[in-house]
Amino acid sequence: MEETIQEESNVLIFLDRRRSYLVKVEKDKDLHTHKGFIRLKDLIGKEYGARIKSSLGTEFVALKPSIRDYVFKMARKTQIIYPKDIALIVMFSGIQPGSQVVEAGTGTGALTTALASYVKPSGRVYSYEIRPEFIQTAKKNLEKAGVAEYVEIRNQDITQGIQEKGIDSVVLDLATPWLVIPHAYSALKGSGSLVSFSPTMDQVVKTVEALEETGFVDIETVECLLRGIQAIRGKTRPETLMTGHTGYVTYARKAALPEPISTENEAKK
Amino acid sequence: MEETIQEESNVLIFLDRRRSYLVKVEKDKDLHTHKGFIRLKDLIGKEYGARIKSSLGTEFVALKPSIRDYVFKMARKTQIIYPKDIALIVMFSGIQPGSQVVEAGTGTGALTTALASYVKPSGRVYSYEIRPEFIQTAKKNLEKAGVAEYVEIRNQDITQGIQEKGIDSVVLDLATPWLVIPHAYSALKGSGSLVSFSPTMDQVVKTVEALEETGFVDIETVECLLRGIQAIRGKTRPETLMTGHTGYVTYARKAALPEPISTENEAKK
Amino acid sequence: MEETIQEESNVLIFLDRRRSYLVKVEKDKDLHTHKGFIRLKDLIGKEYGARIKSSLGTEFVALKPSIRDYVFKMARKTQIIYPKDIALIVMFSGIQPGSQVVEAGTGTGALTTALASYVKPSGRVYSYEIRPEFIQTAKKNLEKAGVAEYVEIRNQDITQGIQEKGIDSVVLDLATPWLVIPHAYSALKGSGSLVSFSPTMDQVVKTVEALEETGFVDIETVECLLRGIQAIRGKTRPETLMTGHTGYVTYARKAALPEPISTENEAKK
Amino acid sequence: MEETIQEESNVLIFLDRRRSYLVKVEKDKDLHTHKGFIRLKDLIGKEYGARIKSSLGTEFVALKPSIRDYVFKMARKTQIIYPKDIALIVMFSGIQPGSQVVEAGTGTGALTTALASYVKPSGRVYSYEIRPEFIQTAKKNLEKAGVAEYVEIRNQDITQGIQEKGIDSVVLDLATPWLVIPHAYSALKGSGSLVSFSPTMDQVVKTVEALEETGFVDIETVECLLRGIQAIRGKTRPETLMTGHTGYVTYARKAALPEPISTENEAKK
Repeated sequence: MEETIQEESNVLIFLDRRRSYLVKVEKDKDLHTHKGFIRLKDLIGKEYGARIKSSLGTEFVALKPSIRDYVFKMARKTQIIYPKDIALIVMFSGIQPGSQVVEAGTGTGALTTALASYVKPSGRVYSYEIRPEFIQTAKKNLEKAGVAEYVEIRNQDITQGIQEKGIDSVVLDLATPWLVIPHAYSALKGSGSLVSFSPTMDQVVKTVEALEETGFVDIETVECLLRGIQAIRGKTRPETLMTGHTGYVTYARKAALPEPISTENEAKK
Repeated sequence: MEETIQEESNVLIFLDRRRSYLVKVEKDKDLHTHKGFIRLKDLIGKEYGARIKSSLGTEFVALKPSIRDYVFKMARKTQIIYPKDIALIVMFSGIQPGSQVVEAGTGTGALTTALASYVKPSGRVYSYEIRPEFIQTAKKNLEKAGVAEYVEIRNQDITQGIQEKGIDSVVLDLATPWLVIPHAYSALKGSGSLVSFSPTMDQVVKTVEALEETGFVDIETVECLLRGIQAIRGKTRPETLMTGHTGYVTYARKAALPEPISTENEAKK
Repeated sequence: MEETIQEESNVLIFLDRRRSYLVKVEKDKDLHTHKGFIRLKDLIGKEYGARIKSSLGTEFVALKPSIRDYVFKMARKTQIIYPKDIALIVMFSGIQPGSQVVEAGTGTGALTTALASYVKPSGRVYSYEIRPEFIQTAKKNLEKAGVAEYVEIRNQDITQGIQEKGIDSVVLDLATPWLVIPHAYSALKGSGSLVSFSPTMDQVVKTVEALEETGFVDIETVECLLRGIQAIRGKTRPETLMTGHTGYVTYARKAALPEPISTENEAKK
Repeated sequence: MEETIQEESNVLIFLDRRRSYLVKVEKDKDLHTHKGFIRLKDLIGKEYGARIKSSLGTEFVALKPSIRDYVFKMARKTQIIYPKDIALIVMFSGIQPGSQVVEAGTGTGALTTALASYVKPSGRVYSYEIRPEFIQTAKKNLEKAGVAEYVEIRNQDITQGIQEKGIDSVVLDLATPWLVIPHAYSALKGSGSLVSFSPTMDQVVKTVEALEETGFVDIETVECLLRGIQAIRGKTRPETLMTGHTGYVTYARKAALPEPISTENEAKK
């Protein structure tokens, strides 16, 4: 039942949260750190979680990378989305194994990776990205995280339309989400969810207005403040440094267009 | 591709967030609300998302319940965990479709439902609950949410031991999580994750101490503050009411016990 | 040095934060509470801080009212400002004993009371209020808190102008602060401060724009989240209930209009 | 009514919040900055708020330093207390012009400066500091801020006793506030306030326990989160960086020791 590290396995060589290295195990490769080097071939055949000393005697742990690790380590060519926000997006969207999801923009694939990891194995993420230069990076990142097969990247402008129909959820992390709302409405199943992530209040207001005009209900916007806690006996306190803002998460569900069916009329007959 | 509402379907009859009703569609049943009644048979054959007027002319929407809806509507016999915290627990734990998860305590099954919905179809949640009176409620709730087949409830005291081995993740929401840490260590795969949710700082400190002593690494504790935003043009502001505290989420990963393997020694040969 | 309670003294009859009563001691008056009545004449000659049992045997404490108590107890005809925000306004404004302050609107006089209590004895608060119905209430509240002599209430529309000059600080808590900015600029001394309190982002943006256009510098906006802590050994945690939002505090200082004097030119001569 | 800058005046040469310089105007002195130098004698005779160009043409503003500026600029030999926390301490303590206040520890005098500025002209701050090396710095800072005459610094260990009696308020910012509580009780007037600032939960719990045992009432603990807001039309959002924690503010008021006087007994006679 225990998994052992193989050649080609991805491993997170972990010292602490800030000093951890996501590497692919290759026989002839060393990982060089400020605390000495590690011969990656030494890891082969070990269980994940193994402790390994560097050439300078510092102890690292060979962890199995989680989705959160992959997201953290993705090339920072765009501002990536924080795990706390991904967590909310996944929960609010109602995404499940098997879900059909449309996402935009792909960027470096951080959010795409997370979404794909929750819809697998039978679901799919259709990820729209207008900037060709990001698509190669995103594909590499999806490959690395092992979720590329659950994703279709579309090099199209999602503000011009969405080609999928009967979608469970639309997830937006782009500059003008309000331009996508009518297309999202068409793409979504009845009762399907839309979740949008935006840094500014102005984006949120425009998006909420578009949702209200288009026939969405159950619209809400939240922000999530995550605070680290130093849990040490006799020194317990929140941590001094904190991210004060990343963005707002807006959520809604598709309702049918009027005319509603009516219990009232039935009653009158 | 569109799903239609059937007899026996679960439907969320939605007016607004506070006035929404999770019902099973039955031919001869009416839903009575303060805004009039709805004949549930009128919904049969309609798509999810359909708008329906009550006998008093108020428009409701027939939404398809999400996991978040099920969690919200669960019988409040215990203090249930908030979706924001479930979201963090799922993300931090690294739980994925296919994961093997141990959870305690079951309570009314709110967190169990959420975990099960992410590990399905091939994963399993082994949920420990010492209080027999909760088990029937939890089973009913899991049935209702359609995830009972992915859960095994164990009427056992998890502070006395965990019978599973090679587990991917242990998730704790109970009064004395620190008593479970050594058992969690034995149950987990190398590099497996532990996530614990506790309302008080004192619980967190004891849990973190137990994690450090037992051989876990990458230990961190966070709290999540969720704030609603009123996104109305010209009146944009956070909402006045806010939950100030639910609990702390503590996270860790299992490392092997020392002795570490050593690149240093290898190098010396 | 100890002060004793006299006839006509204001006393806060305190059971807990929610059940405390601000009364004037009168010989023939009883205070009736859900926990029994208290004969106020029994307090005469006692020191502040005295414990007193009600007719039903419940122990109350006879505290000397602080400015915060007066502010809390003011008639809630308008939404009063919270002590946390008053505290920030006082600190940011740089108000000191002796300061000359212009304030608007007076409302029921809660913020006025606090400002007056910090500028006394030699400073003054000039408080503008357009609605006559508030002025009587405000005057009564200022009298009660013992600060009426440090306040001049002006039944004038501050958006039409400020008659004072050479003011140290302008403090605004009204719906359209941006309309007051040019008048505030004229009323303020060089380097004088302006502090504005507004519930919505839209008000803040308009106010900040007006400040920038008018010649203010050091402009900043903050919000303050106050969270109660339950500090009980073994049960330490933030409190569940919290106010999520009251308003934003915007701060600025008056700079001279260009043209600046120039060290450069001096240097060239 | 306008104040002009004189020789020996303190001036805050302001570019932005981070690049501002608190200087004393001297005829022969230049202020050198990364944006060029400023001849301080050019400021003499100008009004506060004057704009002045540096030798490189950058415009600065010559502001009149506020108490907040002095606190910010104090030598950072100890961790100084934040203005947001000073603001709460002042408001909660009920400190007013004329108040008699005991404070500890003095440190570099940041909090002392603020307290003195609110009790002046007739009040006094008695500030205890056990470490002689801080006292000279504190005195210099108090002189600079112009409040030295309202402060008496006592080079004594406040955990051993407080020599003053009939004090209005005791303000504590030291490592072991709980050791001072009984002395504070003796020093305070009836109904007098105690406010303590501590970074850790453990300190707070011990302090609250000591307060409860000693005869204080109305005990509460809060934390204050201050978040900067970027108020720019079309880009409105909270700022990314935020201080996640400074410390907890605990507040209480002195009640008389039992035995309480009793309305009940009176009633029975």
